[in-house]
Amino acid sequence: MITKEQVTQGYKQIQDEICAGLEQADGTGKFVEEKWEREGGGGGRTRILQKGSIIEKGGVNFSAVHGKLPDPIKKAFKVTSDDFFATGLSLVIHPNHPFVPIIHMNIRYFEMPASDQQSEPIRWFGGGIDLTPHYVIADDARFFHQQLKNACDLYNPDFYPKFKTWADDYFYIKHRQETRGIGGIFYDRLTPLTAGVGWEQIFEFSKAVGRSFLPVYTELISRNKTRPFNEEQKQWQFIRRSRYVEFNLVYDAGTKFGLETNGRIESILMSLPPQANWHYDYTAQANSEEEKTLALLKKGINWI
Amino acid sequence: MITKEQVTQGYKQIQDEICAGLEQADGTGKFVEEKWEREGGGGGRTRILQKGSIIEKGGVNFSAVHGKLPDPIKKAFKVTSDDFFATGLSLVIHPNHPFVPIIHMNIRYFEMPASDQQSEPIRWFGGGIDLTPHYVIADDARFFHQQLKNACDLYNPDFYPKFKTWADDYFYIKHRQETRGIGGIFYDRLTPLTAGVGWEQIFEFSKAVGRSFLPVYTELISRNKTRPFNEEQKQWQFIRRSRYVEFNLVYDAGTKFGLETNGRIESILMSLPPQANWHYDYTAQANSEEEKTLALLKKGINWI
Repeated sequence: MITKEQVTQGYKQIQDEICAGLEQADGTGKFVEEKWEREGGGGGRTRILQKGSIIEKGGVNFSAVHGKLPDPIKKAFKVTSDDFFATGLSLVIHPNHPFVPIIHMNIRYFEMPASDQQSEPIRWFGGGIDLTPHYVIADDARFFHQQLKNACDLYNPDFYPKFKTWADDYFYIKHRQETRGIGGIFYDRLTPLTAGVGWEQIFEFSKAVGRSFLPVYTELISRNKTRPFNEEQKQWQFIRRSRYVEFNLVYDAGTKFGLETNGRIESILMSLPPQANWHYDYTAQANSEEEKTLALLKKGINWI
Repeated sequence: MITKEQVTQGYKQIQDEICAGLEQADGTGKFVEEKWEREGGGGGRTRILQKGSIIEKGGVNFSAVHGKLPDPIKKAFKVTSDDFFATGLSLVIHPNHPFVPIIHMNIRYFEMPASDQQSEPIRWFGGGIDLTPHYVIADDARFFHQQLKNACDLYNPDFYPKFKTWADDYFYIKHRQETRGIGGIFYDRLTPLTAGVGWEQIFEFSKAVGRSFLPVYTELISRNKTRPFNEEQKQWQFIRRSRYVEFNLVYDAGTKFGLETNGRIESILMSLPPQANWHYDYTAQANSEEEKTLALLKKGINWI
């Protein structure tokens, strides 16, 4: 049986691997770590890299917290018990370069005792990884989705199509009628019943999602980091980042959960970009690369 | 008895006065108008000034819409009838200069038939004006609040203290434990019963709030527009603007209402700044002007 300690240790190790790999890919930037403790129980390791050669602002945050669930969350989770344990690894990278995409990855595990104390605890895994290119590059999008499909297929051939659709629906900016980017995979409340595989396999899948990030993103960095760009493309990057802000502050469940439960604000909002611009009623020029990107920010595109 | 047409005409005229006055104060910037129509009924005049000498991005928007209320709004308003009429004038100004404050003003009127069709319609006025200085300057804050108090006192001496407290509570960024700025006045559902004065007086008060904006803001512009500033102060302005984004996207009721009812997105989000920056865990230096400002972003400060 998978234990909290195993998940905690597994996620911590992936955090270490990712931070080491990103520092290497960046070349000059270094992560700065802040260890923090939560008043109600547990804590985390927030690691932030700012003003690197590739990464303008990136966070790779681990946390493992426990305690009593606030009432609104109990209601939202439809559970009666108070005690909870939650551990997760979350990252968001905002690169300097407009042709290097923004990326987000999260893996998480939640556990609480059953109401009757006799039964098995209530537990589930959740997570996902999604890409937000400032300019959608079809080859990169195909590569990204193919790598995710490969990771999924090792565990259950139903995972990729199901979790890909879930990501399209989740990473959607309703008021703009745009997806946040080209999606990826998203899943929640994964249990043997919903996953069709056992806990050990679900845990292995969760770690595989976490470990899929580094090779995929470093490949996308090396493909694009030396491409020339101009001031207009940089402005477009700032506009795309403002959509990222809109999604995270208006819709993102993790951000809302964090703000409502008095989470550690700077760790939660590390996902926001170093600079974002709002132009009134920006319209992309006909047949421009910007317009082509907008046309691809739709649900239901099969990239593979 | 006040009619919809009177309120509509009154607010439109104030929009004209404000736009003319702001163009004069700016010197070079001109408002660009877009007239729009709402599918369900009514429409508006969105006026935006970008890249002026003083105003980097400002919007002064009038709308008068009518139609059927969506169910979630009926529930929120605790009303049974479907038909509604709403008119309002809203403005947000983001200046170039870090010593010129951000300002917001809104006046609005809402009306719907009574459930039994026989009684008087259900109606109320709402509105407010609040100031968000990047650097809080005590003299300016006093002046701002004194002018609002003067406008209020002509109608009811209870208005200013009541509406000042309401603004402190409303313009509050809970997750930062900061007020958005130095507040001002905020009121909603004003009727003879809640206001202690008749409908004509409430309408006059609503217009007085609208007309208080121009002399107050042009005074604050001329006091501060020639003050020298450096790159650090400009960065601080971008950080303060990111808090403005956080308030508007996470808490502002008007923004939420607009996004949920499929309002005209560009008119709703004109309130967002041209550029905002998020630094991870920014800390103001001890005894700096930035730290002094943070210490004044609290509820309950009596500026007069």
